[in-house]
Parts: sequence; structure tokens; C-alpha cells
Amino acid sequence: MTTYRLDLSYDGTGFHGYARQPGQRTVQGELETALARVVGKVETVVAGRTDAGVHARHQVVSFAADRPVDPEILVRRLNGILTDEIVVFGSSRVEDSFSARFSATSRTYRYTILNRSFADPLLRSTSWHVPDSLDVAAMQEAASALIGEHDFASFCRRAEGRSSVRRVLDATWGREKDLVELWIMATAFCHQMVRSIVALCVEVGRGRVPAGRVSTILEALDRSAAKGAAPAHGLVLWDVTY
Amino acid sequence: MTTYRLDLSYDGTGFHGYARQPGQRTVQGELETALARVVGKVETVVAGRTDAGVHARHQVVSFAADRPVDPEILVRRLNGILTDEIVVFGSSRVEDSFSARFSATSRTYRYTILNRSFADPLLRSTSWHVPDSLDVAAMQEAASALIGEHDFASFCRRAEGRSSVRRVLDATWGREKDLVELWIMATAFCHQMVRSIVALCVEVGRGRVPAGRVSTILEALDRSAAKGAAPAHGLVLWDVTY
Repeated sequence: MTTYRLDLSYDGTGFHGYARQPGQRTVQGELETALARVVGKVETVVAGRTDAGVHARHQVVSFAADRPVDPEILVRRLNGILTDEIVVFGSSRVEDSFSARFSATSRTYRYTILNRSFADPLLRSTSWHVPDSLDVAAMQEAASALIGEHDFASFCRRAEGRSSVRRVLDATWGREKDLVELWIMATAFCHQMVRSIVALCVEVGRGRVPAGRVSTILEALDRSAAKGAAPAHGLVLWDVTY
Repeated sequence: MTTYRLDLSYDGTGFHGYARQPGQRTVQGELETALARVVGKVETVVAGRTDAGVHARHQVVSFAADRPVDPEILVRRLNGILTDEIVVFGSSRVEDSFSARFSATSRTYRYTILNRSFADPLLRSTSWHVPDSLDVAAMQEAASALIGEHDFASFCRRAEGRSSVRRVLDATWGREKDLVELWIMATAFCHQMVRSIVALCVEVGRGRVPAGRVSTILEALDRSAAKGAAPAHGLVLWDVTY
């Protein structure tokens, strides 16, 4: 058995998320079907299980295979089988102890908001169109309150029985013309965490929730305290570090 | 009769170009069908007839209608009827002499190349992936040779019997990380002119055609002298001035 690492990008638009689901078209399903043709049936482990509609600029997957394969040939064969919605841009042999999920030390996501009165057809599957005026400084104040190690139960979906303690390393909102973006890095994220944070920050940016209330919401440890989730299609898994 | 101007954006991916064609889904077809519901049957005139797969950030359309309508209501009604592939972001009443096509004094297009070894799934419908090393300075030299008023017969498709004399006001190649972009402004463009210019410039950038040969190709007044056209999906009609 040899353990391999794959580095890939995908457009999440046409998929029911990363994780394999019976009867649904998923990134994992497409990838494992392609891998089966090259190295035989394998089980893959992923750095970040992205939801339906979420994209990845840099996702990482690992798997162990019986059949040895040259990493460069693996990349070429996989890209030959996969549609252009998924691009494998790197592959390497790694230590058997390597896990794309458990060896990762941080994940970075980017969330993009198109902040102007009219929509943009070319950004409709990669940004959330928010026509309301947004106070980005207040959004930054809201995001800054989440930096550090906290129990993010108020921002996590279905975390019952599992820890929702995570360490947010950085969270930065910025504006570049009509685009308002959040860059957020954490050791790991729980389910819907980035999109819940974005939804709350946008409420702060709209002036509907004071930035000072974010700490209270965090401390409530109750999903209903934060409410809502920003649309999936504005989110991109940007990078994973090991 | 009142004459109206519409300002719109579209994602050309799902259309057989701008111009109405029987049995095909086109931007003009969708727009005129929507207009028929709001102001009755009208004939529209467009600033730039974009090909299948070409996008528009800022396209302009004009038409005369019997039925008067408030421009703001027109925008709202049209966007309510159209899919999110087309966004009308402006409308105004204009002089009866106004023609989106003939009153335009210049058109600006942007062409985007993704210049790195691996493709990007999120840019696959808005850029041309060229993995070869490109000499952008040589591409600029090639483009500069086309600035001014010339007969662009070598760069025009099916121009028989019609003038292919155009005035290129500016043509600038630039690189921003992995993206190599051409910004080109002309009084008007003939059919496939931008894509033919891009194809030739890329041949120059790859080192297969010397930049100095561009003038000879221009002077040949023969479509077969320049050859080829870059893929449609890298092209965006950026702006139109009046």
C-alpha cells in the first residue's frame, strides 16, 4: 500500500457537495470513480467537506492504493477522465501516516459578496449579491470578536455530541470596489461555520445587529442565537496547510 | 413612439450569441420576448453583436415603443422576466435619433487568458487556458502595430462587400499573476476581429510568429494571412461609449 496526496480545484455549482451521497452527483463520487479506473477502488479522506454549491481553489485529498502509480501520470489520467469542473493540479507520494483531514493544521476560506444595486451575471455562481449598503468596518469588528479558540456551537449545524470548539486564526473583511470579501483561517471549521459567520457579519454590516452583540451570540452556545447562513455559492475553500 | 436605451450585462455561456436566430436561444431573442410582455413587440438595435459564448459586462440596446413605460419600471419588469444570465442595470428615454449601434463612438473589449500549467474550473467559461510560456512584451509589440485606422480584412470573417476599415484606439496587454489580459478599444470591430487579434498575439507570445510580421499580415488584407481565432469564452464586451 502506498499513500498519495492529491491537490485539486473544483467548481461546486454542479455538485451536491463534496461528500459522496447515494444517487447524487458529488465531487468525491466523481473523484473516486475516476481513481477506481486508475488505481482500483480506494477510500479517500478530504481536508474540507464542502457543502453543495461551495467551490474549492485548493482542496486536498489522501488515499492509500495497492497499485503503484507515478504521481504525474496519476494527475494526467485523472484530468483525462474528470470533466473540466474538477482539476487535479498536484499529486505526490506521502508518508502512510498522512491524512488530508487529520494532518491539516489550518484551512482558509474566502467568502465573496457583490455589494451594489444590480447583480452581475458572470459572478452569479461565485458571489452573494447583497444590494444593501454595508459598513465593512462594523463587519470587521464583528469578525474580530470571533478570533481565538471558542466553542462555536452558535455557528455550527448538527454538532450534537461532537465538539464545536475551534480556533480561528484570522478573519479579515475587505472591500475592493463592489466586492466585499471575508478571508477566514482556522485550525478547522464545523459544519456551516463560515456561512453562519458571514450571515451574522452581513446583518451587522446592514446595521441590523450591533457588532458588540457578537460576543453574546458566541457565548450563547445556541445555533438559534446566530441564525441563518449565507448562500453556499459565495464560498471558496482557498487553501489548506500541513 | 418613444425611444429607449437599455444597459445590460450577460453571461454568454448558455446562448448562441447575441443576435436572434430561428430555433436558437439567443440574448436578443430572450430580451425581445421579455420586452414584448412589457411594451409590446419591438425591434431592438445593439451596440455589439457578440458571438456564441462571448459575454458582456456593458452592452447597450435601443428600441422604439408605442406603449410608454417608466424606465425604472421597465428595468424591474425585465429583470423579473429574464433569467439571472441577463441583468438589465439601466434604462432611459433617449432622443429618437439615438441608435445603440450607430450613435456609439467606441467599444472596449477585454480578453482573458489563464496562463499557467493547470486549468481553473472557476474560470473555465471566462478565460482561455494557455499553458505555454507567453512573452507579454512581444504580444504588446504585436498589438501596438494594429493601433490606428487600418483595413482589418486579415482579421475579419465574411467581410465581403463590406468595409473592414476600423480605427483601433488602444490595445494593451497586461499580466496580473496568472492572468494575461488584452484591453482593446476601437470605434467599431468587424466580425471575429478581437479573437483573431488575440490568436495572432498569442502565437507571437509563444515565439512562433515574430512581432515584426504583424504589419505584413495586416497589409496582406487576406483572412488566411492571420488565421485562427481565440476561443469565444475569454471575451467580454466591457463598455460602449456615446
